[in-house]
Amino acid sequence: MALIVQKYGGTSVGSLDRIRNVAARIKRTRDEGNQVVAVVSAMSGVTDGLIKMAKELSETPTEREMDVLLATGEQQSIALVAMALNELGVEAASITGRQAGIHTTGSHTRGRILNLDPSLMKEFLDAGKTLVVAGFQGVTPDGMIHTLGRGGSDLTAIAVAASIKADVCQILTDVDGVYTCDPRVVKNARKLPEISYDEMLEMASSGSKVMQSRSVEFAKKFGVIFEVRSSLNDNPGTLVLEEHPTMENVVIRGISIERSQARVTITGIPDEPGMSGIILGALADAEINLDMIVSNIAHDFRARHSFTMHSSDLGRAQAALKPVLAELAPDASIETEAGIAKLSAVGIGMRSHSGVASTMFKALGDKNINIGMISTSEIKIAVTVDEVHIEDAARAVHDAFHLDRQPG
Amino acid sequence: MALIVQKYGGTSVGSLDRIRNVAARIKRTRDEGNQVVAVVSAMSGVTDGLIKMAKELSETPTEREMDVLLATGEQQSIALVAMALNELGVEAASITGRQAGIHTTGSHTRGRILNLDPSLMKEFLDAGKTLVVAGFQGVTPDGMIHTLGRGGSDLTAIAVAASIKADVCQILTDVDGVYTCDPRVVKNARKLPEISYDEMLEMASSGSKVMQSRSVEFAKKFGVIFEVRSSLNDNPGTLVLEEHPTMENVVIRGISIERSQARVTITGIPDEPGMSGIILGALADAEINLDMIVSNIAHDFRARHSFTMHSSDLGRAQAALKPVLAELAPDASIETEAGIAKLSAVGIGMRSHSGVASTMFKALGDKNINIGMISTSEIKIAVTVDEVHIEDAARAVHDAFHLDRQPG
Repeated sequence: MALIVQKYGGTSVGSLDRIRNVAARIKRTRDEGNQVVAVVSAMSGVTDGLIKMAKELSETPTEREMDVLLATGEQQSIALVAMALNELGVEAASITGRQAGIHTTGSHTRGRILNLDPSLMKEFLDAGKTLVVAGFQGVTPDGMIHTLGRGGSDLTAIAVAASIKADVCQILTDVDGVYTCDPRVVKNARKLPEISYDEMLEMASSGSKVMQSRSVEFAKKFGVIFEVRSSLNDNPGTLVLEEHPTMENVVIRGISIERSQARVTITGIPDEPGMSGIILGALADAEINLDMIVSNIAHDFRARHSFTMHSSDLGRAQAALKPVLAELAPDASIETEAGIAKLSAVGIGMRSHSGVASTMFKALGDKNINIGMISTSEIKIAVTVDEVHIEDAARAVHDAFHLDRQPG
Repeated sequence: MALIVQKYGGTSVGSLDRIRNVAARIKRTRDEGNQVVAVVSAMSGVTDGLIKMAKELSETPTEREMDVLLATGEQQSIALVAMALNELGVEAASITGRQAGIHTTGSHTRGRILNLDPSLMKEFLDAGKTLVVAGFQGVTPDGMIHTLGRGGSDLTAIAVAASIKADVCQILTDVDGVYTCDPRVVKNARKLPEISYDEMLEMASSGSKVMQSRSVEFAKKFGVIFEVRSSLNDNPGTLVLEEHPTMENVVIRGISIERSQARVTITGIPDEPGMSGIILGALADAEINLDMIVSNIAHDFRARHSFTMHSSDLGRAQAALKPVLAELAPDASIETEAGIAKLSAVGIGMRSHSGVASTMFKALGDKNINIGMISTSEIKIAVTVDEVHIEDAARAVHDAFHLDRQPG
């Protein structure tokens, strides 16, 4: 008998019929001799409806109250899923974030998990019950309702799995697993049987929409092996786990793409200590998330800084930079470019294999695709290209590394 | 500066516009120099919508899960009201039943309040905040979410008022106060400036829809003086409080009517000890709430028992009685009558005034209205009449006791 955590997202519980399907799936897992702890999100649409009401009352609704409001979405779905299970003859009990002992810290609407006290869950499991735990929520040390922000339900599932020492943690979603590339772009993309935490993190931060980085980081930290699989079928998914030696045999695990990027390049800045810090500080104060950052010195000994960001941040970035540059470097100029995209090739095998960058750049060159910026980490090479070429670029690199073929 | 508890029902918070109105009213009370603790119900329609979903999943949804589900209704409205207050510049915080320290006992969906721990509310009040407390909910000793059943938000308001030693507890509703009789029936019915707990209890249990008995009982037990008043205007309402000597000057405080009643009469039962207990026990087992119970012995030394109940219970009552009588008293016969109504005249002055019954019966006789069953308590006389005559009966008795006139 295994203890299995299953996470169901908002689409999976998006209607009463789907809730019945989720209950049937949990029952099947249970009938196979397992104990099940299901972590569920709010029914799709419910959270958006609540946010809409709040925004009608106030442009900037109190964040403490947003947490109280939004936490009701998951509280409703756990009650409904537990009812559907009881109706199928499975003894089930709903468990709120507070009851699951999920203690959080950080500001409201953006909680971080501090620790878990699984004593109530254990008591119910010992009594033979199937549990339905509210994702996305916890409780602060002083007893206030707290939500965990984007990807919070995945985080709950992984944290619960860690705390009750589950044998398996399944993240059930609308995709079949993690692919070598987005199958809508690369038709012969292949589902990966496994991927390391670090690769998954690089994929997540490079535009792969499967999971938020924070959940993967949490899983890595607590050694929770989890499986990303479909809630619509019984196909095996992708295991996400700590790397093991044979994983290095594969050079590139996968490719992720990120569209709607923009570049800002500042030229003609005096190459003086502290200048970069001031510029980056101004962008951080404007709450702009920079992605790639490339700096170098031009032939005139003046510095040249390039950054990428989401194109929707471009206007705010220019507005934040102008006053700073006017004061510090009146000669500097700002050049911007929207309509670019990022292609990242990720694989821990890169550490022990050479020639990865040249294979990638040659594949792009053969297709006449021009490379903009380049940035690398130990297990990733990322380049920017014109957004119109991103799909061709992905297919070319996917082919160059033979990612459609199972490594032998 | 007074500490005021204001209870707003589901209609009062039934839309975002109404929530804004509630917030404005709370702000006004606050601006007058008071501290306010608002107790609110779920937005009207929300609870019904949740019940509908539950019933679609299961004919008999688990009661523990119903509590988890239904408690979200109030949790949403407290967050929204607190947001609306913050938007008006009033520092407000929502407080769930658990956070209000409302500890409950009893079965799920029908919780009873055990005690309150107002420490969090006091802490927030000391910090100058306006509180918005979820009605209708509490928490069991083992940390489970519990709802309080019908009238639960009134009960919350009165319990909160007791626990924080509020100066005033206002039950804001869609009626202006407690009237000498339902103004839709008796045009010259008069709003009462005050009524004693006991009279209010008799009115509530005799069909007056203003409040559930349990809230009044709780207020009486803890000496909480409360005022029933309109949420739509600033008219003074009706104070409900412990009786004081001058109250006895009024013989009849008010008249309540209850329609859709039915009578069951069993004749020909041997007059033996224990027979009544068996018959009443069978009806109790069938969960039929009896109202009036009248028994006597006929000239043949056989007993005759009459009961009234809501007419919707009549079928179940007959079904419950038949097998019992077939076994115990094959000669007994069951006679039923639907289409009756009950008229109750209530007043603590009855204790010290005689002739009340005769005045009442004469008034009915003068209108040729036949009296069916009669039952009395120390402060109430109740009679049944044909339902078609109930409005005429109410007007006749109201006139006979001059209830339209302010007692001088």
